[in-house]
Amino acid sequence: MSVLIVGTTALDSIKTPTKENPRLLGGSASHAAVAASFFSPVKLVGGVGEDFPKKYIQLYKKHGIDLAGLQILPGKTFHWSGEYEVNMNNRRTLATELGVIETFQPKLPDAYRASPFVLLGNIAPALQLSVLDQMQKPKFVVADSMDLWINIALTDLLKLLKRVDGFVLNDSEAELLTKEDNLFRALKKIHAFGPKYVIIKKGSHGSVLSGPTGNFICPAYPLHTVEDPTGAGDSFVGGLMGYLANARGSVEKNIRRAMVYGSVTASFCCEGFGLNATVKTTRKAIEQRVKELEKLTKF
Amino acid sequence: MSVLIVGTTALDSIKTPTKENPRLLGGSASHAAVAASFFSPVKLVGGVGEDFPKKYIQLYKKHGIDLAGLQILPGKTFHWSGEYEVNMNNRRTLATELGVIETFQPKLPDAYRASPFVLLGNIAPALQLSVLDQMQKPKFVVADSMDLWINIALTDLLKLLKRVDGFVLNDSEAELLTKEDNLFRALKKIHAFGPKYVIIKKGSHGSVLSGPTGNFICPAYPLHTVEDPTGAGDSFVGGLMGYLANARGSVEKNIRRAMVYGSVTASFCCEGFGLNATVKTTRKAIEQRVKELEKLTKF
Repeated sequence: MSVLIVGTTALDSIKTPTKENPRLLGGSASHAAVAASFFSPVKLVGGVGEDFPKKYIQLYKKHGIDLAGLQILPGKTFHWSGEYEVNMNNRRTLATELGVIETFQPKLPDAYRASPFVLLGNIAPALQLSVLDQMQKPKFVVADSMDLWINIALTDLLKLLKRVDGFVLNDSEAELLTKEDNLFRALKKIHAFGPKYVIIKKGSHGSVLSGPTGNFICPAYPLHTVEDPTGAGDSFVGGLMGYLANARGSVEKNIRRAMVYGSVTASFCCEGFGLNATVKTTRKAIEQRVKELEKLTKF
Repeated sequence: MSVLIVGTTALDSIKTPTKENPRLLGGSASHAAVAASFFSPVKLVGGVGEDFPKKYIQLYKKHGIDLAGLQILPGKTFHWSGEYEVNMNNRRTLATELGVIETFQPKLPDAYRASPFVLLGNIAPALQLSVLDQMQKPKFVVADSMDLWINIALTDLLKLLKRVDGFVLNDSEAELLTKEDNLFRALKKIHAFGPKYVIIKKGSHGSVLSGPTGNFICPAYPLHTVEDPTGAGDSFVGGLMGYLANARGSVEKNIRRAMVYGSVTASFCCEGFGLNATVKTTRKAIEQRVKELEKLTKF
């Protein structure tokens, strides 16, 4: 089955202590879509400017991503510049040029409306809601978000949380949203906002799922070198939704393995700037790391 | 088989944002010995002052701990006072009164010298070395340490690392020792100092083992409330060594489960001040949480 993915489609200029890479393909939808494409067909919803490089359109196409929902709008593509500190855990934004994303309104092609799996990647909650409004009864909807929306669009975000099956956020965002520093108490509070499944990402410490039949502690793949963690969270949830859309049986039955596949896809993302390492990955390489994680966690 | 455990035997006065508890039984050897006692016989090596409460001697005895190596010395028992911040992750020392620990020299009773398993709990590396010097060919020796010794007794610590089979430290100590912020690169560097097994503790994020047949990612038991984390690391390594001493077969075969048992024993430690929750635990309750961890990590 296919996954519809909405989110930002952007150009990222990324500095790390050792390297600098300008105008890479980035954005939550780009990372999630490429990650999901290893497992199932993807329909992309996004907006880019007239300056959006043709090579990035080719990159999406090479991954079989349906671009009927990608609008090319008058103006410039959303551009984010950021810098990572030595330990790669802290990043600061150097510049944000919203460009066409400022007035972007997702419009779903008719062929998109029946998609069974929907990933509302990180973008303004109002736009995530607008996509949901255009859908016909999807089977499983997951939303991602970020601290910015918790700070400036909480009302919309809470409206959204009532309407999704799953919500993914990182540990510091969970604390910001719930005022709980204990992860398991935070999970409980987030369920009360609506979602049946809540996943808290903890970077190199893995992630934790809370669902109807209990918790799952998901490991991160051990990396000796992190080149650029930008997009790792989007790759995680993209891989997760791609795996779920392709798996037989219920979401409940498949979601733990889906998280492991998401975790592994995210590990490749961290090994190169932007999408450089992700696009070189193969399904076979992903399966290999999943097997390694099985061995790494067995006791 | 029995475990010999050396370390500090102390009185801890602990403040958290909500509670205050003066002169609890504490110290690395106390926590590790009680934790290990759930699995195998323990021989304690330590020194206390004449003020050491009789009820704490009774507590050790109730856990079947052999006290032939506990010296009662003229002067006061080592006393540590500390305070935890709201999130329980940062603690600061309010006062340290060394008392008898300042001149304490471990003296092993003859019956201790043949102990097959030796835990050199957190105490000055010179004292850990002195215990090793008094042993007859132990089967498996593990050392714990802390940032203080990396900072003020590095030469002794490096001498010790050449002579132990396993070394346990937390993630910030690993970074301090190796100048590596990446955990897997840090593990590699620590092996080069000597130990065949290196375990890095990450608090609520679990722990990671690096050994001859690869890595193991060990989960932490999910806690909704942390009353007082003091001694959790000592309980972890105490439980680990107690489990190993009692298990049939090679260390390599048993060490992953030993870490899980250590992790669960540490989870009980966090649920009460000092040793209050640990001493109320039963082997049955530990087995129950190990089973839960199996379910929580299965995919």
